[in-house]
Amino acid sequence: MAKQIKTIGVLTSGGDAPGMNAAIRAVVRKSLANGLKVKGIKKGYMGLLNEEIIDMDRRSVSDIIQRGGTILGTARCMEFTTPEGQAKGAEICRKHGIDGVIVIGGDGSYRGAQKLSQQGINTVGIPGTIDLDISCTDYTIGFDTAINTAMEAIDKIRDTSSSHERVSIVEVMGRHAGYIALWCSIANGADDILLPEKYDYNEQRIIDNIIDNRKKGKTHHIIVNAEGIGHSTSMARRIEAATGLETRASILGYMQRGGSPTCKDRVYASMMGCYAADILAAGKTNRVVGYRNGQFVDYDIDEALAMKKNINEYMYEIARIL
Amino acid sequence: MAKQIKTIGVLTSGGDAPGMNAAIRAVVRKSLANGLKVKGIKKGYMGLLNEEIIDMDRRSVSDIIQRGGTILGTARCMEFTTPEGQAKGAEICRKHGIDGVIVIGGDGSYRGAQKLSQQGINTVGIPGTIDLDISCTDYTIGFDTAINTAMEAIDKIRDTSSSHERVSIVEVMGRHAGYIALWCSIANGADDILLPEKYDYNEQRIIDNIIDNRKKGKTHHIIVNAEGIGHSTSMARRIEAATGLETRASILGYMQRGGSPTCKDRVYASMMGCYAADILAAGKTNRVVGYRNGQFVDYDIDEALAMKKNINEYMYEIARIL
Amino acid sequence: MAKQIKTIGVLTSGGDAPGMNAAIRAVVRKSLANGLKVKGIKKGYMGLLNEEIIDMDRRSVSDIIQRGGTILGTARCMEFTTPEGQAKGAEICRKHGIDGVIVIGGDGSYRGAQKLSQQGINTVGIPGTIDLDISCTDYTIGFDTAINTAMEAIDKIRDTSSSHERVSIVEVMGRHAGYIALWCSIANGADDILLPEKYDYNEQRIIDNIIDNRKKGKTHHIIVNAEGIGHSTSMARRIEAATGLETRASILGYMQRGGSPTCKDRVYASMMGCYAADILAAGKTNRVVGYRNGQFVDYDIDEALAMKKNINEYMYEIARIL
Amino acid sequence: MAKQIKTIGVLTSGGDAPGMNAAIRAVVRKSLANGLKVKGIKKGYMGLLNEEIIDMDRRSVSDIIQRGGTILGTARCMEFTTPEGQAKGAEICRKHGIDGVIVIGGDGSYRGAQKLSQQGINTVGIPGTIDLDISCTDYTIGFDTAINTAMEAIDKIRDTSSSHERVSIVEVMGRHAGYIALWCSIANGADDILLPEKYDYNEQRIIDNIIDNRKKGKTHHIIVNAEGIGHSTSMARRIEAATGLETRASILGYMQRGGSPTCKDRVYASMMGCYAADILAAGKTNRVVGYRNGQFVDYDIDEALAMKKNINEYMYEIARIL
Repeated sequence: MAKQIKTIGVLTSGGDAPGMNAAIRAVVRKSLANGLKVKGIKKGYMGLLNEEIIDMDRRSVSDIIQRGGTILGTARCMEFTTPEGQAKGAEICRKHGIDGVIVIGGDGSYRGAQKLSQQGINTVGIPGTIDLDISCTDYTIGFDTAINTAMEAIDKIRDTSSSHERVSIVEVMGRHAGYIALWCSIANGADDILLPEKYDYNEQRIIDNIIDNRKKGKTHHIIVNAEGIGHSTSMARRIEAATGLETRASILGYMQRGGSPTCKDRVYASMMGCYAADILAAGKTNRVVGYRNGQFVDYDIDEALAMKKNINEYMYEIARIL
Repeated sequence: MAKQIKTIGVLTSGGDAPGMNAAIRAVVRKSLANGLKVKGIKKGYMGLLNEEIIDMDRRSVSDIIQRGGTILGTARCMEFTTPEGQAKGAEICRKHGIDGVIVIGGDGSYRGAQKLSQQGINTVGIPGTIDLDISCTDYTIGFDTAINTAMEAIDKIRDTSSSHERVSIVEVMGRHAGYIALWCSIANGADDILLPEKYDYNEQRIIDNIIDNRKKGKTHHIIVNAEGIGHSTSMARRIEAATGLETRASILGYMQRGGSPTCKDRVYASMMGCYAADILAAGKTNRVVGYRNGQFVDYDIDEALAMKKNINEYMYEIARIL
Repeated sequence: MAKQIKTIGVLTSGGDAPGMNAAIRAVVRKSLANGLKVKGIKKGYMGLLNEEIIDMDRRSVSDIIQRGGTILGTARCMEFTTPEGQAKGAEICRKHGIDGVIVIGGDGSYRGAQKLSQQGINTVGIPGTIDLDISCTDYTIGFDTAINTAMEAIDKIRDTSSSHERVSIVEVMGRHAGYIALWCSIANGADDILLPEKYDYNEQRIIDNIIDNRKKGKTHHIIVNAEGIGHSTSMARRIEAATGLETRASILGYMQRGGSPTCKDRVYASMMGCYAADILAAGKTNRVVGYRNGQFVDYDIDEALAMKKNINEYMYEIARIL
Repeated sequence: MAKQIKTIGVLTSGGDAPGMNAAIRAVVRKSLANGLKVKGIKKGYMGLLNEEIIDMDRRSVSDIIQRGGTILGTARCMEFTTPEGQAKGAEICRKHGIDGVIVIGGDGSYRGAQKLSQQGINTVGIPGTIDLDISCTDYTIGFDTAINTAMEAIDKIRDTSSSHERVSIVEVMGRHAGYIALWCSIANGADDILLPEKYDYNEQRIIDNIIDNRKKGKTHHIIVNAEGIGHSTSMARRIEAATGLETRASILGYMQRGGSPTCKDRVYASMMGCYAADILAAGKTNRVVGYRNGQFVDYDIDEALAMKKNINEYMYEIARIL
């Protein structure tokens, strides 16, 4: 029989992502509407272990839906990867009367939620990462904002690249995942794209492509390079040497993690927050919310962590044809 | 046996939407990659009847993916709603060697495509409208840009509404559909929402809600009103009289139809353009592209026009709870 | 001999404007750096009369420089236009130990500051209004943000106007002043401009201009209309009737008053806040800060209120030629 | 007696800057209104020497005011720094009937204009550079757009910096000039600022400041570093080692040179373009347009190049106090 939940906690963990505040707000307000008490746990699992726990009401989350970052803060926490840390975390939950915890973050954060669930604290995960690299879901909080931020930056780089008839390499975020690079390469009409998921990196092919395009009269050349490939600066140097064309690298960096969330990130984060609040209230545990085939769903965390995700091949083909 | 397609035409019809240029670009480039010739038909069906038809190559669609509006122009055309107009349109296609036409627009535009198909010209429709009011698809080109434009405007209105402790009614587009209103009401944390799909409009309830919120200490009150409800200005007057609180209406208007498309609109419009180009090349006709359950699909236009679409009830509930 | 100032108050009054928070932040931090105590007076003169007065320290103004609106709130106050109200206001200042007040607002707000100064409370005004309609200064807080907001909206309207070959009338804010209209008409390449400062309004001339431009092949026609002229909707109806061309009006409305301030508004508001804090600390009273001939300066309020301001004729000529 | 001008040329030279297109448009249209013919010279002085010269009419500059970059292109040109190159340039002007040339660019571009003037071709310069590093003027085309682009990026970095309680070093453009850094440090409320104009770089002071702020409860620390100082990445490594706090560098890069120009950049570039067109039409030569003390003015190029410019000390003080 499902455990009855009276008080929940909410935390954000791992890298922050725009829309996390919308999710926190939804978790708090939907849980209150469901008749529960809500506590905010600051700075992820580290804050849990340090008992940085605050009471939250409707007003605690006023005027935050439009803000980047996370009002709860986030941090990485080695201690919580140990059995002792996990037991201590569950103990602190019990001490504060917290029956269930909603964890907003990525795969690493779900592993924490899994352990907490094993320790008797109900948990539900919400996918929050700009990288989209969570296998069980087609949507992660922050991705839509990040691709728009990167795209707008690349639009600007294209202006100056075109005026100077320059080759530009733009490195976008994504750690080991190339989703931001793939989307931007289509959205920005990039001439070349480099993804960690594709093992066909061939600098000579890029160089030939640049020379070929220049002959056809194209006045600029944009290469979108994923963080997982990296080395944009040295690549620029080699391409400049090989083509004789001015070549510059831009590494977009941390700006991609911030900013006021897009409409989609605010709305989907709100819906995922409500969904998570509802299933936690219903007594579910060790679950993670996902968006799959056009619907919000939930999976067992163990299953979710075992899933694999691949770059959409048709999308990758389109990125190279257009 | 499928008709062999050698030359296609592309046109935009009905209200314009950001992302239409991305779709045109994809149609042109993918069709060329598929070995076809491409012609652009200007100003929708009216331009077809006036033979405003131009040759298009890869360069014709350079540097347009980031632009709002449609480079082909669009117009309404009464003549094409008549059998004579439709026959004439098909005749002109044949005269120009156009075997198939891709039509980017809404339901009205599909009816034209349906008739053209009956006249022996293959047709494929792509959903392009900021209103999202096409039943066969979860995505329409321009909606994502429109909701972000509206949301950013409402964010700004909230700043001044809050400084003056004012009630603000913001009227967003959508003709008979409330999707823009629904998304913005969640994304902007609106206090009230009025949708044409919901017949429970009750001004006294809104007035009570305002007074109630004011007592709880909330310093502003945002009402998102859909165009299909309208009458924002007179509503503001009545609410001000009833509550004694300064109340102002803003009608966002045509700015919602323009602007550089968001990343999602650029990418999905590109994918839909490629998809349409591929099925037209494969000899399909009287089809419309859709995005359903997380996938790009296509439907028979007759079936597509017979479908119904409803506001997501869970989303509407969330809009009111949060 | 200059009165010695130990504690100052700061308030915002009249219509809010983006950048007011930057000015408040600068007033508070510079005054603290000058060794003074600072109190915030909420909701303008009304809040003063209601004794809504709070202590402010460095942290009170953290994380506000990027926000639209005013954290202190603003309101209109009839009572403070009476001698009794003014005497009461001065009395309340004395009760709270406030020796000097910095007032951020427009001409109406300066009149209040003038009266307060006559009652023995030192005062310094800072020009805050999106309308730029303060005679003693070339810069007012919020104008730069407002023109960018309006310009971006008109850019979007132009996209759709061009796709539909439509005539668009866009009404921008400015009450009796046409500065926003003038700047936007240049920045947006408008075809016609209507300003309250120019008495040559002639609808037939606009109609002729539209027909003339259409003959030259121009596919859209943008008219920027100032709020002080107004009547955009009926104008659109008449122009449509006279030209036979689809004509639409957009009234941009309150969004022009909000939004995160531009860099210029943040920087100049910060500098004006510091300047005001410094001259108040130095014992000056009945002064208003201005930006004139490329420098921050201050004027006696009586003189400032007597100044006149005119539309730059060369700018107006350029608006019509380009 | 002033030489009579019948045909002018216009070129952009050096680094591109948002607003250059607005200036080109104004030069073209005002010159046409002044009864002159106009030719566009592509890719700066290099294009002049290669005779890349095109006729321009009113329509050549339609729909460009809102675009970043320069439609004429720009390039660096060693040949034009030689007397032979300069004589050849003047000869080509004469061959094409060009009596006067308007050069949009920075100091280096003015030197070219100076030489061309000595060769008998009238010249007028317009200051175009995002760096603001031209001594004779308080305004340069592109600076306003660049500071807003940088500021918005830093706002986003602040979100994530705050969520992670991180130290962030943001490197902004400006070559040898610190103006972008100075403006952003005020606009973004930076905690430290490093300018090439100030020789007090002291890493220990920054480290002490970080530790001090952290003790006071500040959760993030933003350092704005000018390109002229550079070395942000190694600085981040040393600061992280010294403070034990996560420290990250972001180098904003080329995005600062592009993007749709702000309202101020569009308007001032338009006015400078008109001003330059007028003085060139009036027979002036070897002049450069400036904005000084709130007015558009012009200087002899020799004098302009001899002027010095300094960082505003009051502004620098404010940047450090606020």
